[in-house]
Amino acid sequence: MGGALQNLGVSAAINLGAGGLFVAAYMVASRFPINMRVYFSALSERDPDKFAHTGKKGLASLKPDFHIFDWLKDVLRMSEEELISIAGLDAVLLLRIIALCLRMFVPITLWALVVLIPVNATDHNVDYQLAVNPKSSFDTLDKISLSNVRDKSTRMWAHLVSSYLFAFWAYYCLWTEYAAITRLRLKYMADGAPHPEDFTVLATEIPPAHSDNRGSTRERVERFFREQFGEYFSGTNTVTNAESLWRLIKKRDDTANKLDAKRIKAARKSDKRRLTTRTGCLGLCGPKVDAIGHYEKLLEKHTDETVQEARAMEQSEDRYLNAAFVTFTNRWAAAIAAQTQLATNPLVWVTEMAPEPRDVQWSNLGVSKWQKSIRRIIISTAVFFLVFFYLIPVGIVQSLANLNSVRSIGTPVRQIVDVPFISGLISGFLPGVVLKLFLWILPALLKAMSTFEGYSSNSRIIKETCIKMYYFQLVNVFFGSILTGSLFQQLRSFINKPTSLPQTLGNAIPSKSSFFITYIMLDGWAGFPAELLRLWALIIYHIKVALLVTTEKDREKAMGLSGLAYEEILPSLLFYILLGLVYAPIAPILLPFLLLFFVLGYVVYKNQIINVYEREFESAAGLWPFVASRIITALMVAQLTLLGVLSLKLATKVAPFAIPLPIMTALFGRVLKERFEANFVNSPLESAKAKDAADTTRFPDWKLEEATRAAYTHPAITGGLEQDFLAEMIKGEVHGDLEGGPDASVRTPPTSEMEKPVQMSGMRARAAPHSVETAADSIATGNDSQLSAEDNV
Amino acid sequence: MGGALQNLGVSAAINLGAGGLFVAAYMVASRFPINMRVYFSALSERDPDKFAHTGKKGLASLKPDFHIFDWLKDVLRMSEEELISIAGLDAVLLLRIIALCLRMFVPITLWALVVLIPVNATDHNVDYQLAVNPKSSFDTLDKISLSNVRDKSTRMWAHLVSSYLFAFWAYYCLWTEYAAITRLRLKYMADGAPHPEDFTVLATEIPPAHSDNRGSTRERVERFFREQFGEYFSGTNTVTNAESLWRLIKKRDDTANKLDAKRIKAARKSDKRRLTTRTGCLGLCGPKVDAIGHYEKLLEKHTDETVQEARAMEQSEDRYLNAAFVTFTNRWAAAIAAQTQLATNPLVWVTEMAPEPRDVQWSNLGVSKWQKSIRRIIISTAVFFLVFFYLIPVGIVQSLANLNSVRSIGTPVRQIVDVPFISGLISGFLPGVVLKLFLWILPALLKAMSTFEGYSSNSRIIKETCIKMYYFQLVNVFFGSILTGSLFQQLRSFINKPTSLPQTLGNAIPSKSSFFITYIMLDGWAGFPAELLRLWALIIYHIKVALLVTTEKDREKAMGLSGLAYEEILPSLLFYILLGLVYAPIAPILLPFLLLFFVLGYVVYKNQIINVYEREFESAAGLWPFVASRIITALMVAQLTLLGVLSLKLATKVAPFAIPLPIMTALFGRVLKERFEANFVNSPLESAKAKDAADTTRFPDWKLEEATRAAYTHPAITGGLEQDFLAEMIKGEVHGDLEGGPDASVRTPPTSEMEKPVQMSGMRARAAPHSVETAADSIATGNDSQLSAEDNV
Repeated sequence: MGGALQNLGVSAAINLGAGGLFVAAYMVASRFPINMRVYFSALSERDPDKFAHTGKKGLASLKPDFHIFDWLKDVLRMSEEELISIAGLDAVLLLRIIALCLRMFVPITLWALVVLIPVNATDHNVDYQLAVNPKSSFDTLDKISLSNVRDKSTRMWAHLVSSYLFAFWAYYCLWTEYAAITRLRLKYMADGAPHPEDFTVLATEIPPAHSDNRGSTRERVERFFREQFGEYFSGTNTVTNAESLWRLIKKRDDTANKLDAKRIKAARKSDKRRLTTRTGCLGLCGPKVDAIGHYEKLLEKHTDETVQEARAMEQSEDRYLNAAFVTFTNRWAAAIAAQTQLATNPLVWVTEMAPEPRDVQWSNLGVSKWQKSIRRIIISTAVFFLVFFYLIPVGIVQSLANLNSVRSIGTPVRQIVDVPFISGLISGFLPGVVLKLFLWILPALLKAMSTFEGYSSNSRIIKETCIKMYYFQLVNVFFGSILTGSLFQQLRSFINKPTSLPQTLGNAIPSKSSFFITYIMLDGWAGFPAELLRLWALIIYHIKVALLVTTEKDREKAMGLSGLAYEEILPSLLFYILLGLVYAPIAPILLPFLLLFFVLGYVVYKNQIINVYEREFESAAGLWPFVASRIITALMVAQLTLLGVLSLKLATKVAPFAIPLPIMTALFGRVLKERFEANFVNSPLESAKAKDAADTTRFPDWKLEEATRAAYTHPAITGGLEQDFLAEMIKGEVHGDLEGGPDASVRTPPTSEMEKPVQMSGMRARAAPHSVETAADSIATGNDSQLSAEDNV
Repeated sequence: MGGALQNLGVSAAINLGAGGLFVAAYMVASRFPINMRVYFSALSERDPDKFAHTGKKGLASLKPDFHIFDWLKDVLRMSEEELISIAGLDAVLLLRIIALCLRMFVPITLWALVVLIPVNATDHNVDYQLAVNPKSSFDTLDKISLSNVRDKSTRMWAHLVSSYLFAFWAYYCLWTEYAAITRLRLKYMADGAPHPEDFTVLATEIPPAHSDNRGSTRERVERFFREQFGEYFSGTNTVTNAESLWRLIKKRDDTANKLDAKRIKAARKSDKRRLTTRTGCLGLCGPKVDAIGHYEKLLEKHTDETVQEARAMEQSEDRYLNAAFVTFTNRWAAAIAAQTQLATNPLVWVTEMAPEPRDVQWSNLGVSKWQKSIRRIIISTAVFFLVFFYLIPVGIVQSLANLNSVRSIGTPVRQIVDVPFISGLISGFLPGVVLKLFLWILPALLKAMSTFEGYSSNSRIIKETCIKMYYFQLVNVFFGSILTGSLFQQLRSFINKPTSLPQTLGNAIPSKSSFFITYIMLDGWAGFPAELLRLWALIIYHIKVALLVTTEKDREKAMGLSGLAYEEILPSLLFYILLGLVYAPIAPILLPFLLLFFVLGYVVYKNQIINVYEREFESAAGLWPFVASRIITALMVAQLTLLGVLSLKLATKVAPFAIPLPIMTALFGRVLKERFEANFVNSPLESAKAKDAADTTRFPDWKLEEATRAAYTHPAITGGLEQDFLAEMIKGEVHGDLEGGPDASVRTPPTSEMEKPVQMSGMRARAAPHSVETAADSIATGNDSQLSAEDNV
């Protein structure tokens, strides 16, 4: 008794202290020019006026009149519209979801504090239970929770009625939010310059040539769509199988960059001795050779390979994958082509709206439907085992990484380990590190799994990663914290007796409130300031800068703009929404802690979105339907839990009235989905037609064919083959065939012209085409690398 | 021991005897001219040359050179193509399903007889069990079933391998059948004259007028679709709210027919006394009045009401329902309009391909989506209770219909009932009759429920009725026969412990084989000949003819052509497929009985389809996907049952290998669905375009607008308002407004011209428009009724 409250106080103090420390560290660190790339990468790219160039390396720093608190005010005041134009709708969606949490939980918290806590606190169940059995595990928090209400008490009507009120309020919030986000999405798609993706569908499962439709893939696609859509058909970008070329080009770029680095180092060297390197792995082993000569040879070799691969691709019969981007003359026809069944066999000529150009996952476009199905079965099984047996490999690795196994490595290691301080560190610390390491690689692992499943867009891969992460957290954190025994045993007992779920939840949930409060404080009160400080990114960046960076390209690579990790943020937000909804009627004291969590999250992420993260792609709030349906599920879990608690507390008159709640929520979820979800899948003909009509006058000069060609050609061709070192080849032989086709009416224009429409439609041009030049400009020895590259052609 | 075999023999003899008797009776009865309408209604309508007119009432009879066995030969030889042209693809689908059963079960039966029965018969489990416990309930049949294999025996590998072989063979049959039916469906839709439904979509959920789209429903529909589809939009038939007018017209027709009947009777009477009738219910009570005068007044009254209703409808603001048939200039555009999301709000402007004109359920077209959802929830709940608690009301009625309650009606009844013979009859017979009555009204009840759910086409209503019937049979006949305790208790225990299903099945199934064999013989060996004899229809027809028929219209009504009752046949076929698949590896002796069942069914239904039943609508095999998915389910139930039996027989090495079977089947079902089902929902653009191109040359004269107008106008307007008695009104005021609209370019042509395109597209013109004339022609007093009708206008 009382110990819990004290523990909570200590935990709050520690977390608040840590959070304050992180914020202070951020405020100091963000003023250093050398950290600009960590804390203001997006802002400095977008708004260079706020920065002055200083220091010996020309590093940017914030101008003196830049005050962090003024800036924070500006950040918080920034309107949604401006934020959309800066960071896109996906980032705004994240902020809207946090704001939705606040909007949803503020009235719930007030109601719970004013109504439920007095109802709980004025009963005496905890005292009574402690009197009967002094060893009961009740703590102070239980005195203001449902646990303090006696069995069979009529007071539980208050919790039931509250639960209904919470449900209706949540419905209202979800409905208005879904409507608002749908409006934003439609407005986003209707406003602004034309997007190539509005005119384009991705056609996959192109059937092989047969008597009715002969010729190359490109010809067959053209013939089929011209037949079906006549005048509405504009052109096609058949997807070229250029993945291996793309790898070679990147390898060659890398070698060229290394050569540049060696030249810079050679130029800097005072003793004029020749720079040497080793040919083995990472330049650490193998025979010593002259560095510049070695990389020159390597570059020559890689360039040769690249050119050969480009030639081979050009001559290959199967250079097209079974996928094509088909462009139509207007949005109306594209929307139709994406939504209708084209062929009598529904498994061929499968179409969907094309992903935004940056969003295309090129390496997955060649994956056939059957392969996708098989891969999805494999991955589903793998995810199932990962979710339910995650702790087993962790345990194994932890047991391997114990003191004895470390000692067995060798005598010198043993001597070190036997120092008492170090042995304590290893036995106390290593297992925790192993667990952290496993959790840390989890998002990347799940993302790799989702990529393997074969989705054609990054945003879809992110969504599928989110789903997997959510299940992982739900099972391992939520159920894992409240249930006893192994997760798989629990799962088996649920499958054997699914109706036991509410009672199991009702039994376990109430006693865990202080545990989850601690969790919220750790993840939010300390976690969000840590996100602000980006300690990990900061360390990595400085290590890279100190050890690896020579050329400007290296620095770019060291802290390239990174995007928001939706696959980590959204599942964890959803997890906290679940916690809030579950505990609102049972232990409302958790809610104020959660509110502070959401407030901190909102401020931190608004700042990070404006200053730090880049928009990697734009799915126009495409992740929202997933979030909405998970909130509905969370509401149902909460209502089932209440049902379980009520029936365990023998509220035989009250509990039956809790049964309609989850049913009502399921029905509401279905209505919500039917009313809104279609607009996140389809492009409705009505709005397509309206935008077609409006843009004829607004953007009469927009070049559809050029824009879509630039947008939907494999980066190995736009970003690789068009590099200077391959320029001649392109103009000569490869280019016409690969892109325009022998009978294409419009020849590809030079690169600079081609990119205009891309930028016009809000996309950031890829850095790749110019990377060699950039690197070349920055080095002391001039244009050597460019020259040497050209020599090799 | 042995008793079971003897019982089975007796049962077989009785059923075969009854069946033979029915066939003999059919062969005699079908030669009588007076029964022609019962046995050859469809044939006589289609092929009058086969019949001669004989007898005093001009009744048709088969010509003397018509031999029943030759005819049967012709029936069996009739090609599928001819059958499709005669009876449509839906009827052919039924025969194909029975043929599929044969194709699927013949090899399975052979394999089971040659491999499994020897394996079972050479073991000695039954003898052993009987030796241990002489009271075991084993019978002779068990000696050749899986029950005769000892526990833990390796012989069960044979059953497992057989089950895999059966599964692969069933997959093959289903796949080829689905492919064949899809081909037939596509061919059916591509061949022949143009169908109005190919060019038309049914648009529902038309949003109310708002600032962007004002005016009447008709104007709003036209404006919206013209905006979305421009030149492809052809016209719209807004659905008029004419249900009450239609009821009045039918009531008036009925009165006119009664007046005709009285006139005929008066003319026939020898004593020239005036014919009288009573004004009360059914003409049995109330004061006596002059019959002809009474009906003349009544007709006048009903005609007045009809005209008033037509006027009221014409002037009413809300005469249009929120639904419209929208016609496009080609199939391509119609297919697009049906498949795409038109409005940004996916709940308005909802479209689907229009049902075939005969298939339209006019009374449901005004039902809104929300109403449909609510109705479906209500009906689902009702069906759930009906399925699981069906026997409770039956029991209550049975207990009410016992001897004592009958005796309590009154003294005279009591005296009759107390006769020992009659009391025996009541107590032994009445409960059975009550049960039969309940089962007999079930299809009609379920059909009424499905109609209430608000589907827009008859074929969909039939499909939904089939689904409900199937569940009813599955639960009440299959599970009801094999499980103990009340069904609801069983359901509760399954929900509490779903994994117990295989073992429960495995425990109960093997011992029930002789019960189901009896069931098959009763329903098939005697049942199909009974279907041939149509005893019930024959009796009803003759009662009606003797008591009620005066005019020719009465006779038509007495035995109007009726359609196949798919909602009764398909679920029971599916039930037998389930039986066959479940027992194939366990008690294969059931299979030969089943084969005979399917053979009889095939012959009988082929005959009935050619001779008796009319095609009421044509959904082009639209019921098939439902059947296919239920066969997949049956296969899974069979495989789960085998898993249960194997694990109960402690085949610990064999049973785990049965686990992949149901998973494999579920995957196969999904692939099957993905590959084929789309063509039963959508009209693919490819085939729409091809048919558009072909028909421009094949049917250059086809009048799209006239055909669709005639097809998709409410029958109260085509079949009612155009009747002669309303002719003047039509030409004057109502007609133009109701049908063509004030600004429609094409005025409605006279009736005779209007029907041409309808018949051309394979539809039977409704009898309604001419019914008054037909009746008038047939009566002795000449054209009185027609005149009186016209006088009243």
